[in-house]
Amino acid sequence: MSYTKLPTRQNVQKILGHLKLNEGVIYLNGSVMQERDNTDVELPFRQESNFYYVTGVNEPDFHVVIDIASGKTILVAPNVVPDHVMWMGLPDSLEVLQAKYDVDQVIYADQLNTLFATASKVYTLPITKNAAIEQSSKNKLANASEQQTLETAFIDARLIKADWEVEIMRKANKISSDAHVKLWQAVHPGCTEAQLHALFLYESARHGAFFQSYFPIVGAGMNAATLHYNKNNAVMNNPNDVVLVDAGAEYELYASDITRVFPVNGKFSPEARVIYSIVLEMQKACIDMCKAGVAWEDIHATATEVGCDGLLKAGILVGNKKEILDKSVMAAFFPHGIGHSIGMDVHDVGGYPRGVERINKPGICNLRMRRTLAPGYAVTVEPGIYFFGYLIDPVLNHPDTGKYINVEALNKYKSVGGVRIEDNLIITQDSPINLTTVPKEIDEIEALMAAN
Amino acid sequence: MSYTKLPTRQNVQKILGHLKLNEGVIYLNGSVMQERDNTDVELPFRQESNFYYVTGVNEPDFHVVIDIASGKTILVAPNVVPDHVMWMGLPDSLEVLQAKYDVDQVIYADQLNTLFATASKVYTLPITKNAAIEQSSKNKLANASEQQTLETAFIDARLIKADWEVEIMRKANKISSDAHVKLWQAVHPGCTEAQLHALFLYESARHGAFFQSYFPIVGAGMNAATLHYNKNNAVMNNPNDVVLVDAGAEYELYASDITRVFPVNGKFSPEARVIYSIVLEMQKACIDMCKAGVAWEDIHATATEVGCDGLLKAGILVGNKKEILDKSVMAAFFPHGIGHSIGMDVHDVGGYPRGVERINKPGICNLRMRRTLAPGYAVTVEPGIYFFGYLIDPVLNHPDTGKYINVEALNKYKSVGGVRIEDNLIITQDSPINLTTVPKEIDEIEALMAAN
Repeated sequence: MSYTKLPTRQNVQKILGHLKLNEGVIYLNGSVMQERDNTDVELPFRQESNFYYVTGVNEPDFHVVIDIASGKTILVAPNVVPDHVMWMGLPDSLEVLQAKYDVDQVIYADQLNTLFATASKVYTLPITKNAAIEQSSKNKLANASEQQTLETAFIDARLIKADWEVEIMRKANKISSDAHVKLWQAVHPGCTEAQLHALFLYESARHGAFFQSYFPIVGAGMNAATLHYNKNNAVMNNPNDVVLVDAGAEYELYASDITRVFPVNGKFSPEARVIYSIVLEMQKACIDMCKAGVAWEDIHATATEVGCDGLLKAGILVGNKKEILDKSVMAAFFPHGIGHSIGMDVHDVGGYPRGVERINKPGICNLRMRRTLAPGYAVTVEPGIYFFGYLIDPVLNHPDTGKYINVEALNKYKSVGGVRIEDNLIITQDSPINLTTVPKEIDEIEALMAAN
Repeated sequence: MSYTKLPTRQNVQKILGHLKLNEGVIYLNGSVMQERDNTDVELPFRQESNFYYVTGVNEPDFHVVIDIASGKTILVAPNVVPDHVMWMGLPDSLEVLQAKYDVDQVIYADQLNTLFATASKVYTLPITKNAAIEQSSKNKLANASEQQTLETAFIDARLIKADWEVEIMRKANKISSDAHVKLWQAVHPGCTEAQLHALFLYESARHGAFFQSYFPIVGAGMNAATLHYNKNNAVMNNPNDVVLVDAGAEYELYASDITRVFPVNGKFSPEARVIYSIVLEMQKACIDMCKAGVAWEDIHATATEVGCDGLLKAGILVGNKKEILDKSVMAAFFPHGIGHSIGMDVHDVGGYPRGVERINKPGICNLRMRRTLAPGYAVTVEPGIYFFGYLIDPVLNHPDTGKYINVEALNKYKSVGGVRIEDNLIITQDSPINLTTVPKEIDEIEALMAAN
């Protein structure tokens, strides 16, 4: 039997390249199987991302030791427990594990500590657990500052996606994109958010994606105004409502993160059409900017400005654009950041480099990343406009800012609830690669919904 | 708006009745929202079962304090964090929480410690976390023996299901039973185990059951010989194989746990028919015994004996029945226990009472419960016959036991892999109530598969 190995040895080399050290070993442990409370119900197993990055192993109870000077990578498998075999079957032999994974050697856990005997230093990550390290080697463990050095090397490596990682993320996006369209074709007045949620899980799982990258958001009408709405239990009684679905399957431990908005009855209302078009303009302007060398906060600023233009044109905002932007009025409608790094985790590593602070202004303070884009970055671009009284009312009722909002227009549009449009991009020197294949033009959405 | 409350006050009264104490308070905390590793990916939230039992609350970050003398139950809600509202929406007010849950009062967490000020003793469970208790009250905390007293009261209460709990379990069984039939109608040669797994999740979720009681087992052919097989990734290339599906949805935090076996091509092979019929006889004999006053290990013994009769008749076992049973040969084919308590957890509380030990013989040593049945017990009855070389070969190769196995017959039947049939029952003074509605007679299964 032959196996397709993930080329994780390349990842090890990237990390060692960033680490710039000559001796010692790196020691990481993978996730263990955990049980719920004091019961024996096993929790879903998902490998810790950094461990997967250097091993490709998505099974519980493994360790890995990497020799820094040579790059030699030794995978450490759990010893076989005879009582386990009856319940779980025979585990892979060391030979099979060696054939499955891109490592130099595989040993059993009872030999783990022999690997520390000759090491000068044992580098770990802040999340590494030291319980398996014998007392005699504990004095070699990295201190907090050395752990940070290793963590930074992992972040720098993981931020730049290899081509084979992009291909996995493309597959995750394809599965999720297709699932979004299935929801458009299933929705109808009287449908529940839970039914769409269940269908998204099914369309993902039957294509091999049994995990979601995050808990899906399925919010109709005003529910979409809550950014991370997770109740997903309302009945869609209003045919004029739009539904916001923010859902992305995880495929082979890589995330997708896609948001689309569509009308319950298949036709955008005039009000929804206006708000949707503003957000689509925001997104297109941002995607046009996405290339190597651009600062992420500048893209956020563009989204804010294009959104402001749109709300002024719709009459929801009134007055001087510069004043509106200076006073952060837009944060009442677009309160979150333009997007984030994405990879094995949906909010992937590499948000704020050490020493870079958040910008202390409403809206942009929630930006999840401040970096200059480089080729190989994977990011989401996800502008939105929301009508959430909790955020708008304080701005409306404040003497400095209330004058910029036209209450009559606000009342006309607020039942739209919330609109967000989100794609996943790979940054290059030129135009980005958009991994997300689900359409987003109003005409395309309405045509696909009618085609059902 | 009106809410349907779970009558959890009855549960509090049951626990206090078992506890037989006059003063002090019970303090429990519910589960908190947890994130994966050092990322901000939220893990699926599921309330701790004991906390749910006395509150009906399936939301994160709550506490409860129960005054033992009066039974007064005070639910403690997390304080509202303004930054949270943007992401998660406005939480329920104290008034709404009071309307939703069967408690006497609802307060915010910053008032929690006032409830300990006048208490003489604070009883907790072994899993309770004490971090929220101020130092000044820590000296009132129950010791390990007092924690056990409270735990035993919870176990004794939870073991006997109230009628309304039975109705929820009936619904969980109905959803799961219907889902099993959907799998029979979807399976076909070339189908993957993963497709059936995905379909089971979907059929559960679209009927409101977004959680499974446990990780589903979908094993075709020899995969079914691994009791807790969880790879679920094989292609069903052999049309004569049977598929074992052990899967049960959780509905409103109550488990179901159902196993059925069916042929890939819709018709049981002659060999599968023989083995299936033996297991069905085992199960029927056990269900007939299930009533108040019967010891659980006696039901296990009946399964073993009926299974032995069947394997003798099929010619797989040969020789003296008493010797075969005395030498535990049956444990090579039926290596697990006959079943377990089921409730909010799939392997529910109450397995072995304090002081009752496991029976130190192969097979029955894996029995998950030793108790005398009483009205209101909920149990699974799940005999099985498996052909797993890892278990059979040592018995076959041992000079004391090898003679009881006919290798020719074994080779004829072993490709059946494994058969288990599992229903969920409520114990009464007379015949049990069988909550599981999916058919199990061969004719019924073949007819339903043909009806597709």
